[in-house]
Amino acid sequence: MKILVLGGDGFCGWPTALHLSDIGHDVQIVDNLSRRNIDNELEVSSLTPIAPMGVRLRAWSELSGKTIAFHRFNVAEQYHRLLSLLREWEPDVVVHFAEQRAAPYSMKSSWHKRYTVNNNLNATNNLLAAVVESEIDAHVVHLGTMGVYGYGTAGMKIPEGYLRVKVDTPDGEVEQEILYPPNPGSIYHLTKTQDQLLFAYYVKNDRLRVTDLHQGIVWGTQTAQTERDERLINRFDYDGDYGTVLNRFLMQAAVGHPLTVHGTGGQTRAFIHIQDTVRCIELAISDPPARGDRVRILNQMTETHRLSDLAALVSKLTGAEIAYVENPRNEAAENDLHVANDQFLHLGLQPITLAEGLMQEVTEIAEKYRARCDMEKIPARSLWTQAPVKA
Amino acid sequence: MKILVLGGDGFCGWPTALHLSDIGHDVQIVDNLSRRNIDNELEVSSLTPIAPMGVRLRAWSELSGKTIAFHRFNVAEQYHRLLSLLREWEPDVVVHFAEQRAAPYSMKSSWHKRYTVNNNLNATNNLLAAVVESEIDAHVVHLGTMGVYGYGTAGMKIPEGYLRVKVDTPDGEVEQEILYPPNPGSIYHLTKTQDQLLFAYYVKNDRLRVTDLHQGIVWGTQTAQTERDERLINRFDYDGDYGTVLNRFLMQAAVGHPLTVHGTGGQTRAFIHIQDTVRCIELAISDPPARGDRVRILNQMTETHRLSDLAALVSKLTGAEIAYVENPRNEAAENDLHVANDQFLHLGLQPITLAEGLMQEVTEIAEKYRARCDMEKIPARSLWTQAPVKA
Repeated sequence: MKILVLGGDGFCGWPTALHLSDIGHDVQIVDNLSRRNIDNELEVSSLTPIAPMGVRLRAWSELSGKTIAFHRFNVAEQYHRLLSLLREWEPDVVVHFAEQRAAPYSMKSSWHKRYTVNNNLNATNNLLAAVVESEIDAHVVHLGTMGVYGYGTAGMKIPEGYLRVKVDTPDGEVEQEILYPPNPGSIYHLTKTQDQLLFAYYVKNDRLRVTDLHQGIVWGTQTAQTERDERLINRFDYDGDYGTVLNRFLMQAAVGHPLTVHGTGGQTRAFIHIQDTVRCIELAISDPPARGDRVRILNQMTETHRLSDLAALVSKLTGAEIAYVENPRNEAAENDLHVANDQFLHLGLQPITLAEGLMQEVTEIAEKYRARCDMEKIPARSLWTQAPVKA
Repeated sequence: MKILVLGGDGFCGWPTALHLSDIGHDVQIVDNLSRRNIDNELEVSSLTPIAPMGVRLRAWSELSGKTIAFHRFNVAEQYHRLLSLLREWEPDVVVHFAEQRAAPYSMKSSWHKRYTVNNNLNATNNLLAAVVESEIDAHVVHLGTMGVYGYGTAGMKIPEGYLRVKVDTPDGEVEQEILYPPNPGSIYHLTKTQDQLLFAYYVKNDRLRVTDLHQGIVWGTQTAQTERDERLINRFDYDGDYGTVLNRFLMQAAVGHPLTVHGTGGQTRAFIHIQDTVRCIELAISDPPARGDRVRILNQMTETHRLSDLAALVSKLTGAEIAYVENPRNEAAENDLHVANDQFLHLGLQPITLAEGLMQEVTEIAEKYRARCDMEKIPARSLWTQAPVKA
């Protein structure tokens, strides 16, 4: 199949592009290199030494004999460039990763809120409008987030996208299935709940075929493809904005810093290994919705952990101490989380567990590259709310 | 109170600004004149001869002795201009009409879809981010639409914004109140459902005070203020994009054209007179939510009518014939609609009914200005879907 990967230079996009190329698809990448530019803004670097796109693609070509074309443009701003590409190449699938994806970054300042809303919503709307205007029948596969659900669910297992509810009407109780009521925890997560409404509308009005993948927190760095050559290595973010919780712990352990747990550590979150991410994208592509189907929503996660338990696990593996610090986020101190992921298990996903893969991350990534770490960048500094309002 | 009206040159914004000024508030207007510029694009004009903003404001000052300041800029694009105005003037209330508001216009082409999404969502997000950054405690009053609810409700009365649902959990049935599940019928309506998520998030995270008014289709042209001088006259749109159904019927009757009913005319819609709109804004301002309250949502409509009944009413008043034409919209052919509007009735709204006010519209607007009508512009030409997808 011809697969266009929007955001194919990013942490999930790059290994996805390689994986899909490796299993025989014809892959092209669109990216405006925004993630690398944000590194410049934040004065941070990936712990792993990521190669420029040109080097990455030449290395992949040398190793695999396959060519991945690269188009550098901004999906949120350059609609006609995207439209032309869809018309000329007529991809069968468009995988949409072209969004700003860090919650703390989206809360850093008013500018960051506005950038995230403007970029993410225009990127998604441009893609959907372009698929309609180009009249191609591409399956759109979008990376959503578990964060659309919020984390307070009264002991209920979070279903895959839709919730069955009962409503009292004059004719008695009526049951219907609705999009799970959103409860986003940051501007970034908010944009993904707004994306859901875009998908639902275009699917209803234009009968597009859309799959939305509500992904948990990704851990791990390498996939079977990215580890074949250091020039293909994937990003490892450990900074306070883009570094997710597990990476922060690993990095802290590697450099001898206590593991900083926000608040009580009673927050429970869903996780998935990057190798499973790329496999899930493959599975989602292999099983597209039909024309006229509603948006297919799958939960892309494999296990849930309480953050204090994660810290304890990393501490046990590495000997690092644990420090409890104030939580910069505006969120519940404690929550339970039970998540349905039956659809991917049914499609054949065999999850990699933290218990299996974590030690490799510690030794092959965090310890191997620790000399590249800037410890100043580890603490989370983005606050969810600014100073209290004037009296 | 100091009240900033964003979009104060538009069909609802202008009479709202005058009404609020008339009852003693200190009013300033922000507008980029986009509605007039869209007239240029569509090669149409308001049936009523609307004066330039400078003339409007001088006339109001002569008649009332009150001054309304006018700032011409784009809320969706000029964030810092908005932020400076909020910081310097510190309004108590910001009334937000600064959105593209025509469903057919939002569906005209890919460009119009993208303009509507980009303009409406960035305008709303810019406003909310600016209220947070300026640290003022302004009450934000937003004009939403009944269209966020969709029109299929199994005989149930549409509640005001929130729906009580029951969900099965392992601990038994749990009741909760959720934002009414959205079901927008156009890209324009979609943006209002996305606005709701923006409001809910900022209210949760930043404790802003927000009222969202889900308005029905507005009819009527003049208010007590706009009819005091022809230089203050309000817009009357009769074209296929901006003219709402009742205005189209009135115009068609005035020029001797059959009343064109889309489809069966079995669509039921909610209506409100423009005089009641401005009164509702006044009432919403008088009863703000407290800090920490959820978004206050009110249904701003006073009666519902089946479109075929409306056509019959206009036909009876004017003698015009009725013609059934193909429906350009992608919507249910028939629906019932029952809407709660208890909150405004409780606040003292005394609705103007179609039965009372319609004849004045026929004689004082449609017949009086019919020489200004361009009959070519009456048919609705925007289609909801383009040619069928390639096989």
